[in-house]
Amino acid sequence: MLARRLNSLVESGLLERRRYSDRPARHEYVPTECARDFRPVLWMLIAWGNRHFAPEGPSLLIVDANTGARADPIVVDRATGRPLMSPDFALAAGPAANARQRRLYGAARGSNTNRRRP
Amino acid sequence: MLARRLNSLVESGLLERRRYSDRPARHEYVPTECARDFRPVLWMLIAWGNRHFAPEGPSLLIVDANTGARADPIVVDRATGRPLMSPDFALAAGPAANARQRRLYGAARGSNTNRRRP
Repeated sequence: MLARRLNSLVESGLLERRRYSDRPARHEYVPTECARDFRPVLWMLIAWGNRHFAPEGPSLLIVDANTGARADPIVVDRATGRPLMSPDFALAAGPAANARQRRLYGAARGSNTNRRRP
Repeated sequence: MLARRLNSLVESGLLERRRYSDRPARHEYVPTECARDFRPVLWMLIAWGNRHFAPEGPSLLIVDANTGARADPIVVDRATGRPLMSPDFALAAGPAANARQRRLYGAARGSNTNRRRP
């Protein structure tokens, strides 16, 4: 059961299997970069749940690991530090967009025309 | 079909039904604060997908709505602006945590002991 779960996570690219002992042969499972990169998604999801679905108070908090101070996660643009909020930022069709996405979101040009806010 | 979907989103608290005309009676559906607050989760998810699951290039981009410049979303702490990364930040049990969450994540105290990194 556990082995099957671990293998499925390895196949999905979320865990990496590393041998840490030869005799006897033993392995450890460590999160891949892909899995570690998922953490911010999870953190925003937790913050959203705390804000809207926890009238009894939050069950999970994001805290400073050293001081225990509670953190309040927001999304900003890495280069400029500007908070990513509508209507300042919007979705646009990327190079691999399909026809439907191009129709809905337009192309990523300098103009605001034909661009939908998500 | 559409009416059922709209009603289900109203019941979930993601859409609000507003009457905008009396004769004839007409309604519009607008996203609630809860739905709008979900956007950052979606944006982090899109960025994660673009980074790890789009070898052919991204199909959706987050852009500056005025200039079209591509944004790169990261999660920071609202008060300090510090990027929320492990091991600097971690999950901790909140006031409404159940027994299992308390065991896994400890309580949100000033100490780093008994706290798991997600």
